[in-house]
Amino acid sequence: MASTHTNHSSSPTADPEFFAVIPAGGSGTRLWPLSRSQEPKFLLDLLGTGNSLLVDTVTRLEPFADVAHILVVTGSAHEAAVRKQLPALGATGVLVEPSSKNSAAAVGLAAYVLARTSPEAIVGFFAADHVVANEAVFQETLRAAIHAAHSDRLVTIGITPTEPSSAFGYIRTGDAHAGSAVVREVTEFVEKPSFVDASRYVASKEYLWNAGIFVGKVQTVVDAFEEFAPELAKHLSEAAALAERGESMEGAWSAIAAEAFDYAVAEPAARAGRFLVVPGDFGWRDVGDFASLAQAQNGGQTSDVIVVGDSAKVHPHDSSGIVVGTSGRIITVLGVKDIVIVDTPDALLVTTKEHAQNVKQVVEQLKEQGLNNLL
Amino acid sequence: MASTHTNHSSSPTADPEFFAVIPAGGSGTRLWPLSRSQEPKFLLDLLGTGNSLLVDTVTRLEPFADVAHILVVTGSAHEAAVRKQLPALGATGVLVEPSSKNSAAAVGLAAYVLARTSPEAIVGFFAADHVVANEAVFQETLRAAIHAAHSDRLVTIGITPTEPSSAFGYIRTGDAHAGSAVVREVTEFVEKPSFVDASRYVASKEYLWNAGIFVGKVQTVVDAFEEFAPELAKHLSEAAALAERGESMEGAWSAIAAEAFDYAVAEPAARAGRFLVVPGDFGWRDVGDFASLAQAQNGGQTSDVIVVGDSAKVHPHDSSGIVVGTSGRIITVLGVKDIVIVDTPDALLVTTKEHAQNVKQVVEQLKEQGLNNLL
Repeated sequence: MASTHTNHSSSPTADPEFFAVIPAGGSGTRLWPLSRSQEPKFLLDLLGTGNSLLVDTVTRLEPFADVAHILVVTGSAHEAAVRKQLPALGATGVLVEPSSKNSAAAVGLAAYVLARTSPEAIVGFFAADHVVANEAVFQETLRAAIHAAHSDRLVTIGITPTEPSSAFGYIRTGDAHAGSAVVREVTEFVEKPSFVDASRYVASKEYLWNAGIFVGKVQTVVDAFEEFAPELAKHLSEAAALAERGESMEGAWSAIAAEAFDYAVAEPAARAGRFLVVPGDFGWRDVGDFASLAQAQNGGQTSDVIVVGDSAKVHPHDSSGIVVGTSGRIITVLGVKDIVIVDTPDALLVTTKEHAQNVKQVVEQLKEQGLNNLL
Repeated sequence: MASTHTNHSSSPTADPEFFAVIPAGGSGTRLWPLSRSQEPKFLLDLLGTGNSLLVDTVTRLEPFADVAHILVVTGSAHEAAVRKQLPALGATGVLVEPSSKNSAAAVGLAAYVLARTSPEAIVGFFAADHVVANEAVFQETLRAAIHAAHSDRLVTIGITPTEPSSAFGYIRTGDAHAGSAVVREVTEFVEKPSFVDASRYVASKEYLWNAGIFVGKVQTVVDAFEEFAPELAKHLSEAAALAERGESMEGAWSAIAAEAFDYAVAEPAARAGRFLVVPGDFGWRDVGDFASLAQAQNGGQTSDVIVVGDSAKVHPHDSSGIVVGTSGRIITVLGVKDIVIVDTPDALLVTTKEHAQNVKQVVEQLKEQGLNNLL
């Protein structure tokens, strides 16, 4: 476990094994009361495709990874639901975290588990709750990233920005990598900027959105943990060993600091020149709040009333916005603009698109009031 | 039945019998989905007093009329609910209309039924769904009206306007009646005016709101029907005779034209100089839509969120308006102004105070769509 990234600069293989890891955590509180702690965003059929975002994510990766090579990392609260939605995942296809420790732990646990059997395989990490409109371009982009990962570098996929969003982190791109037409060096990962900075980033064309997608050799990922987050690495390595023996991870797990992967590993690794990036323009969306859900439903249009659920139940008059109905009731909307209505069996939210980001604070207040059964 | 109002100018008695008639009809569609055709406004505890508007109306009249002298006129669809809410009403305390024929028929049926046994009694007519804030002033005003009715004139109670409303009809007042400090002649009943005309009316101090309350000797009321609506009078007289014998009114009833009492009787009677008026300033409200319900709940204030129902279930943040909750769900409201939210078990309405009057049109559209189970 003392290896560093320089010890593993093996040459690219033509057809390495590929594993897809899907950390499935986060409750999506800005989508409350649709998204709940017991049924978070990734388990929901948010776009009315008939499948949850998680199932859509697995389906999207099937051209790259047999189901036996797909690993979902989730909390114990969601294991049953994940297995129910994805019965094809075997016993070892779901890695269950004893408690939520943020993204560095979820990514690292999967990497260390894979390292025990397949250190030379390529692994990709993909959020469980993102939306991709153009699957063909996604596949082309991922193929390029996997190819670039043969170089023993970590490779992220950066999304070509469509607007100066302050909701995402950014990736600053540098020179072309080894003469490639698509792969570039990463100069740095930048945390969520102000709108003004975001506007500057987008205008410069130097920056891409950080979608949290990255690819690398398993050993390269593990090496990055060893080098940039040695304390995490130690506990994750122990946890993976326990998991492999079918023993409880609790002891090792409780010692793990809850850190974001970007902060603990990706940012320092990028500063040390370890990251490459492949730009991708495949209609990616992080449906983070109801305003973006309305956009995702409506192909970017913002007029009229977008319905998520049974549109026959929704009766809009002289109104615009989004109505999400899961209660089965008739919903009549009259003379309201940019409204957000989320109608579930036990909770109703009425707000506006402008306030969509603040739903998170509402949920925090409900939590403070002890209304945990609604969260 | 051929008597006219001039045949019955008997002198006032000191303590005549008093009957209170409460026509309980109308579905209150502007209060949908709270008010339904099967559970209209008058059956609802609209103000959270613990009683329906109908029960509050009966209670308000008890200082004047023993329960045996209270008559509710309602449709067959509501008989059971009325009897359940008012078990003290005897078998003859509820007059059931075979079908809805507007207010002239409801008023006239009660008058003709009472005329068969108590033509010299005084009868007062009171809407089933109005709100009175100041009971003491109401009693004082009604006492003056009953006193004035001894003169064999019809006596209406006119509400001192608090604003230039275009939602009510107006009563134009004339000279003081026989030197009275409170009773005035009625010059005319005016239909709902434009806002401009209403402003002029209120500024002139000559006009009062028509609250549909009026008092008269039973025979005087009947005489007015004979004189001004002889066709209605004929069928109503037949219907009352059938009702007294416990026989079906259907035949006589079906011949009755559906006319408003104001149009068929009160307006021509006023033009003929038959009406007196007692002004009343007792915090009267016709809670006709959600904007006025919010006002009634909040003592005229319009800021913040007014809750009708369990306020512990409503969580407002940076919002104003009214939330009516009967579904038992948690309702969270974030960043919306002058909003109207009506949350019932099978239907949800979201609109604004500005559009409160238009709810009626929404209900008409639902009807056209055949969604009668929701109306």
